[in-house]
Amino acid sequence: MSLSQIPVAVLGATGSVGQRFISLLDQHPWFKVAALAASDRSVGQKYSEAARWVLNDPMPDYARDMVVVPAKPDCIDAKIVFSALHNEVAKDLEPQFAQAGFAVCSNASSYRRGEDVPLLLPEINADHIQLVKIQRKQRGWSGCILTNPNCTSTGLTVALKAFDDAFGVKKVFAVSLQALSGAGYPGVASLDITDNVIPNIKGEEEKVEWEPRKMLGKLNHSKINLADIQFSVHTNRVAVTDGHTVCASLELASPADPEAAEAALRAYRAPASARDLPSSPRPVIEVRSEADRPQPRLDRLTGKGMTTVVGRVRRDPILDLKFVVLSHNTIRGAAGGSIYNAELLVNENLL
Amino acid sequence: MSLSQIPVAVLGATGSVGQRFISLLDQHPWFKVAALAASDRSVGQKYSEAARWVLNDPMPDYARDMVVVPAKPDCIDAKIVFSALHNEVAKDLEPQFAQAGFAVCSNASSYRRGEDVPLLLPEINADHIQLVKIQRKQRGWSGCILTNPNCTSTGLTVALKAFDDAFGVKKVFAVSLQALSGAGYPGVASLDITDNVIPNIKGEEEKVEWEPRKMLGKLNHSKINLADIQFSVHTNRVAVTDGHTVCASLELASPADPEAAEAALRAYRAPASARDLPSSPRPVIEVRSEADRPQPRLDRLTGKGMTTVVGRVRRDPILDLKFVVLSHNTIRGAAGGSIYNAELLVNENLL
Amino acid sequence: MSLSQIPVAVLGATGSVGQRFISLLDQHPWFKVAALAASDRSVGQKYSEAARWVLNDPMPDYARDMVVVPAKPDCIDAKIVFSALHNEVAKDLEPQFAQAGFAVCSNASSYRRGEDVPLLLPEINADHIQLVKIQRKQRGWSGCILTNPNCTSTGLTVALKAFDDAFGVKKVFAVSLQALSGAGYPGVASLDITDNVIPNIKGEEEKVEWEPRKMLGKLNHSKINLADIQFSVHTNRVAVTDGHTVCASLELASPADPEAAEAALRAYRAPASARDLPSSPRPVIEVRSEADRPQPRLDRLTGKGMTTVVGRVRRDPILDLKFVVLSHNTIRGAAGGSIYNAELLVNENLL
Amino acid sequence: MSLSQIPVAVLGATGSVGQRFISLLDQHPWFKVAALAASDRSVGQKYSEAARWVLNDPMPDYARDMVVVPAKPDCIDAKIVFSALHNEVAKDLEPQFAQAGFAVCSNASSYRRGEDVPLLLPEINADHIQLVKIQRKQRGWSGCILTNPNCTSTGLTVALKAFDDAFGVKKVFAVSLQALSGAGYPGVASLDITDNVIPNIKGEEEKVEWEPRKMLGKLNHSKINLADIQFSVHTNRVAVTDGHTVCASLELASPADPEAAEAALRAYRAPASARDLPSSPRPVIEVRSEADRPQPRLDRLTGKGMTTVVGRVRRDPILDLKFVVLSHNTIRGAAGGSIYNAELLVNENLL
Repeated sequence: MSLSQIPVAVLGATGSVGQRFISLLDQHPWFKVAALAASDRSVGQKYSEAARWVLNDPMPDYARDMVVVPAKPDCIDAKIVFSALHNEVAKDLEPQFAQAGFAVCSNASSYRRGEDVPLLLPEINADHIQLVKIQRKQRGWSGCILTNPNCTSTGLTVALKAFDDAFGVKKVFAVSLQALSGAGYPGVASLDITDNVIPNIKGEEEKVEWEPRKMLGKLNHSKINLADIQFSVHTNRVAVTDGHTVCASLELASPADPEAAEAALRAYRAPASARDLPSSPRPVIEVRSEADRPQPRLDRLTGKGMTTVVGRVRRDPILDLKFVVLSHNTIRGAAGGSIYNAELLVNENLL
Repeated sequence: MSLSQIPVAVLGATGSVGQRFISLLDQHPWFKVAALAASDRSVGQKYSEAARWVLNDPMPDYARDMVVVPAKPDCIDAKIVFSALHNEVAKDLEPQFAQAGFAVCSNASSYRRGEDVPLLLPEINADHIQLVKIQRKQRGWSGCILTNPNCTSTGLTVALKAFDDAFGVKKVFAVSLQALSGAGYPGVASLDITDNVIPNIKGEEEKVEWEPRKMLGKLNHSKINLADIQFSVHTNRVAVTDGHTVCASLELASPADPEAAEAALRAYRAPASARDLPSSPRPVIEVRSEADRPQPRLDRLTGKGMTTVVGRVRRDPILDLKFVVLSHNTIRGAAGGSIYNAELLVNENLL
Repeated sequence: MSLSQIPVAVLGATGSVGQRFISLLDQHPWFKVAALAASDRSVGQKYSEAARWVLNDPMPDYARDMVVVPAKPDCIDAKIVFSALHNEVAKDLEPQFAQAGFAVCSNASSYRRGEDVPLLLPEINADHIQLVKIQRKQRGWSGCILTNPNCTSTGLTVALKAFDDAFGVKKVFAVSLQALSGAGYPGVASLDITDNVIPNIKGEEEKVEWEPRKMLGKLNHSKINLADIQFSVHTNRVAVTDGHTVCASLELASPADPEAAEAALRAYRAPASARDLPSSPRPVIEVRSEADRPQPRLDRLTGKGMTTVVGRVRRDPILDLKFVVLSHNTIRGAAGGSIYNAELLVNENLL
Repeated sequence: MSLSQIPVAVLGATGSVGQRFISLLDQHPWFKVAALAASDRSVGQKYSEAARWVLNDPMPDYARDMVVVPAKPDCIDAKIVFSALHNEVAKDLEPQFAQAGFAVCSNASSYRRGEDVPLLLPEINADHIQLVKIQRKQRGWSGCILTNPNCTSTGLTVALKAFDDAFGVKKVFAVSLQALSGAGYPGVASLDITDNVIPNIKGEEEKVEWEPRKMLGKLNHSKINLADIQFSVHTNRVAVTDGHTVCASLELASPADPEAAEAALRAYRAPASARDLPSSPRPVIEVRSEADRPQPRLDRLTGKGMTTVVGRVRRDPILDLKFVVLSHNTIRGAAGGSIYNAELLVNENLL
């Protein structure tokens, strides 16, 4: 079987993250979409009729006439399933798929905290994928579950990794300005966000205060030691379609000036195994030197939406450094991240 | 002369802050608008022709047919002038007016740092108005200059005052999400903010890191001792017409839990001299208990736009407290603030 | 019983139109809100807990602690009920209230086409209220049902009335740009309207092509002869919170130039019985002469949101006249309209 | 000289249309950008420093380090110049370039009405390019000026062409909802369009009432007979970044039902000479059958932004047909259109 023929499926294919999977898998060099699965309401319909497409890029031709199937292991013939399921549904279904031999690359939060479940951003912690071996042994699965983090954790953690490697990170204050697509569809009501800001996103702050600690943690034999970093996170929703912006202040173990900090960001390289995959961000981090960048509309598609964009690296008057980080929430922070994880799994011969 | 006959003028009357002055002075119980002054381009025109009105509320009738006059002391017959001038222009003109005997209530930043110039939020530091006496003596002016702070400093400082009185504030991390009207008109280009965030506002962070220290400082004989509080501020522009939102984390001298903190906010009262003026905020601080408030569109008009609205008071995982504060940037944070200052001046018999 | 004591109730009180009723009835000189009714989910809760308030103006104090009651005649003690019910619910419930003796002033579309049901804009067809007598006789009701038109029909029909009286209107092409609040809450998804236009509103075009014909029709004994005017209407949704804009082209029976047309608009007066009610628009029509008005954000609150604002009156290259008309869709076009209808009913001694 | 080496230049390279030229010419199969010209303020700077980039797609690498040159014929070594100049500047400069032997493909309006100047949408009136021969003879130029229409005329005229060929078009009512990018940068102030509509665009209605008549006219020996079609046009600005929507009603010479009308749109083909060029729209027209399409955010990139998207084809209650048409205003309606014109010129051996 050549790489170009690895059959994959999308679970939750009609939602907004499901749509992003379908868009990003169009012409993928390794994967071929064999099935689109969704809830009973959509099953049996052509995808073009079942889905209310919300992306700027038109629906790929390959998907239009595919008939939506149920999200059950025995209805799907594929090696990898990409999960855009809601968390409660994912909690039940994903283990069934893993049990049945599928590699589940999930965007849901249900298993991110599992001790034997990799929470992956390949460009920073590709080695954590080794947890899959533990997971299979412990759970008796032939398949597996891989997860990617919350869309707001994503860009922040990539930037923190570069700083942590170079100087050691001790404390992080972060305030997000998050895009509408992060809430799915229909998601946020227009009357709630027009001429407005919503200064809270339910359940989000806890995730962003914990997930980076797992990803920046060290894999020690069969488990991950959480990174010893303190986080204080505040999340906001703003009237932006795509692209999460985070304003952060850091305390470092070895204080660094802004020039050294920028140099560390520019010098950062993904681990070798995650460097040349189809979805590898090129570059991993882009540093902008303008006074007012990154901006979501202008910078979210950097590196096809997989690059983390950092700007305004400067001294913090209380701690050490301040900066702004931007990441495309439904590409790097959701569907693109799950696909990148699947590529790493294949590349590590763990499929 | 009855109070209702104090003649006032607006300098920079055609701009967006000037318009807000004109709107708020409509039917003011103490002040009567005697002159509208603007740049040469507008002089001699009827106000309704000279101004491109941008407020939601229609232009008051009294202003429509007033003929715009030059912004020069000898062209204006009034006791108080409200300055909505640009900073460079204000720097030159405001002292000329003060010298000529006018009380200048300024929204410009030019003299906020002057050691003998009050930087006032009457509901928190009404006593600082005593600096006017020093100012008059030192400069030989019969008039004076009073200033109000930057629109982002405003709401934050009111909330900090309540916390500082109750628990002592030591460190403040603050990230703003600022409205478009803060940049004046034409201000921000629509292509720069539609589907976007601008993660910097030129010169703003320095102001918000310094101004609260003066306002929270103690008046000691003839000078103000800056409050010993450290600030780290990041400013953003978002697609909101009016209302600045600030997310803040605090370190306190005497740690307090969220319940005690909310109680301190609710218990806060303006100094007696600033409590019953026409523009006094009622209440000074409103505390919202919902999970997702304050929001600019829903809360900016609380207390006719003069109230500071605080919500999401909670523990900060690194420091002590976190909260969100909202203030109407062109009412409490600009024109309404200058008018409130003028009322205090009259009330203290310092006009 | 003095006027100030007419007890009224709001049906569908928690929705966005219900909220507007509650806001406009605050301090109403004739009506006192005696009950707030909503669906089972809300019954028994305090209004401030049951409703997710979406208006810019804060919730009136009187409503906060009222306990929501069921929308049933025997649960409500009032003379007038204002209906913000959904059409399907209104269809069942409104006749029950009318039967039970309530005057139902409805914003729902269910009975607008009833031959014995007045479809009212008091400033143009106050005489149609006489249909209530027919309605009561035919249906054996002691109460009655009055309706106000669709929010897009509203402003357009007011402007057409002035033109029809002066010159006779024969054909109307109209294209709307409608606000989000017209769709209720949650209504339009933010991802559907951010950086976007939706070029259709389900069921709306048919309403706007028919309703003006009834309102501009003549009451002839016991029935209304529909006006002999042809309409072609296209409706769009745009990213505006409140205020519907309509661009129209007209063919007239007696052609008029723009000056005469503007004069006719300015000269238009409401019928005597509708002229001095608490909600009477002052003026009925405001004509703007600027090249780029009316605009929703700047003009929707003209006359407290009850005035119809017209601008850009000019020659049409194919027919006779072209113009733009703006009306506040949830004040004049919904709750304010129903209240104005109720006032007319009282004034005509038909309650 | 191989096709891939035709050197071209962009005049007005730093503005928003200039940026779109630079983006679309990246990797163009026939053209190579040899020079970027702009006003004195930018001359001598690197393009990446001179331009404030406003497009979603990042600045192409080839442009970053090019040094901006003056917009003068003797400073530029190229065969074709793409003009994104302002109209007043274009009026002076474009003839100088044509005189000096350059083919000027202009987006400016200055020469659109010239009797010997082609106003081109190659997919509908490719034959009009023959006017270039007359132009050269009459003016003694070795170069030439080609123009593309106003961005709002563009999509409307493409749709009208298909209807005109099939049924004959006699009258057109059109109302536009236009994007912000049509006004250039900084263009529309954010306070003017947030939560708002601007119901006029200066000078636009006249253009859209005239330009389609020239493009739909017949080339008769050395001149174009304007099409005998009446237009009534109203233009609006809405809060959309890119993509102009037009709502239109038509009177036809041979009435057609919506099915026949849709069939005519689907069957429409570009003239042979304009069909297989690099920028040819594929398809020329896309017909959407959903009830609420086309929408700017979802449909503007159809056919890489060169396709005209039509939907809601239905009976008009007064005339014959109604429909909605969408076109990307800075791709098909501006820079992409000029490039397509240049390709036609090359293909016809008229360079």
